[in-house]
Amino acid sequence: MTDRTTEYDFETLISVRDYELDVQGIVNNANYLHYLEHTRHEFCHEAGTSFRTMHARGIDPVLRHVSIEYLTPLTSGQQMRSCLRLRRKGPRFIFQQDIYRHPDGVPVVKAEVTVVCLENGALSRGDILAEAFEKYLR
Amino acid sequence: MTDRTTEYDFETLISVRDYELDVQGIVNNANYLHYLEHTRHEFCHEAGTSFRTMHARGIDPVLRHVSIEYLTPLTSGQQMRSCLRLRRKGPRFIFQQDIYRHPDGVPVVKAEVTVVCLENGALSRGDILAEAFEKYLR
Amino acid sequence: MTDRTTEYDFETLISVRDYELDVQGIVNNANYLHYLEHTRHEFCHEAGTSFRTMHARGIDPVLRHVSIEYLTPLTSGQQMRSCLRLRRKGPRFIFQQDIYRHPDGVPVVKAEVTVVCLENGALSRGDILAEAFEKYLR
Amino acid sequence: MTDRTTEYDFETLISVRDYELDVQGIVNNANYLHYLEHTRHEFCHEAGTSFRTMHARGIDPVLRHVSIEYLTPLTSGQQMRSCLRLRRKGPRFIFQQDIYRHPDGVPVVKAEVTVVCLENGALSRGDILAEAFEKYLR
Repeated sequence: MTDRTTEYDFETLISVRDYELDVQGIVNNANYLHYLEHTRHEFCHEAGTSFRTMHARGIDPVLRHVSIEYLTPLTSGQQMRSCLRLRRKGPRFIFQQDIYRHPDGVPVVKAEVTVVCLENGALSRGDILAEAFEKYLR
Repeated sequence: MTDRTTEYDFETLISVRDYELDVQGIVNNANYLHYLEHTRHEFCHEAGTSFRTMHARGIDPVLRHVSIEYLTPLTSGQQMRSCLRLRRKGPRFIFQQDIYRHPDGVPVVKAEVTVVCLENGALSRGDILAEAFEKYLR
Repeated sequence: MTDRTTEYDFETLISVRDYELDVQGIVNNANYLHYLEHTRHEFCHEAGTSFRTMHARGIDPVLRHVSIEYLTPLTSGQQMRSCLRLRRKGPRFIFQQDIYRHPDGVPVVKAEVTVVCLENGALSRGDILAEAFEKYLR
Repeated sequence: MTDRTTEYDFETLISVRDYELDVQGIVNNANYLHYLEHTRHEFCHEAGTSFRTMHARGIDPVLRHVSIEYLTPLTSGQQMRSCLRLRRKGPRFIFQQDIYRHPDGVPVVKAEVTVVCLENGALSRGDILAEAFEKYLR
């Protein structure tokens, strides 16, 4: 785990809130999409941009695809380390997003989230977004 | 129950969705605020208006106060009849909102929801909203 | 579309509730996982079983993987037709879940949801679940 | 504000997560009930108990009434200080719960949350819960 961690572009700690548990006593599956989205927004913030700012420039990042593998459920009172790595594939921005239980590092979910950009409503090449994320894209 | 029902201005049926249950196996308390909001929006729709339309006219209805009594919890597979009665008290629009388990009519929650109107950011007398709800206000 | 529809094992109508919209005015991406889960539970109900019943028999269906493609966003006041087809691949139960805007049939999301069964905590071959879904598995 | 703060029994910092915003760009009203619940659970944790523990002892705290006043909406990127004061009135446990925007201290919501205890399904005098919260009850 240690090796891979150092490769992430961003990570943040998130605490489970009890209302996120479902009747089985574990975090409901949909909440992980919330955690992933929250992490992307925090990452944007660190990168010096925001969905609001992008919207003002006429760019709307749009979620196109999510693939998420559920490995270990989180439950009441637990914390997670939500990690993110960004890469670009033409017009698509691909976020590799992995969540680990904190502090023991047990993998919780592994996800790949694909975002594209609409510029004034039409699919764009994504160059403006790429600029905002310049230092993270290799 | 039957008598009171005829006094409501609006009612709608809502089904519990399993993801709304919490770890105790009953609908989480916050979801009732969702049900109440959903009912008000459906009511606005029937009244021929919407929050979007009002916003476009420069009016923003704002939630000021909610008082909610929890009587009987709802659980998986159940339906509710969500009822609403509207009255005005100066600038305040007061929604009496009662939810009954369907079809047996057991009271689930009783709530009083107070909404005021902002017109271009300032508290308004509410005359434009009163006009939209004219036929419901006595 | 018409051809494929006849191949689904189950379908149900779901209405967007306004509180499911996010700041962009469209249904938040995580809510589609709620819709998909709700549809699976309704399907189980029609198949004559429930997660509660299965749990009582010592079987716990567990979500293992979700792949979801976002095609067209839903917004305020819209309805969706949520469709499901089930197949088995060894111990894995794979739900093909497609959501269409109703009534115009525009595709909204296409998802593949993989569920496995734990029996008394250990991964099972899934034979008990297969029995419950017998008439849907080909 | 400073004076009153020192009177609270517990306080915790909570960050707004972007998916909690609604179409108006502010935190949806139902989410404040989530924040309040989260705060009560953290408080129980600090008091050395939990809903799980209480349940195991045959006690089920049940929400009976919430009165919530909305003063200032929270929005993207903001933090709140969620404060709680507990008192007992016979069988009822009353949580005075106030949320302030952090760090400027602007009042966000003021709420009064009433909880009673069921012991093996029947309304109890609440003595076991009172014991758990002994040092906070005056």
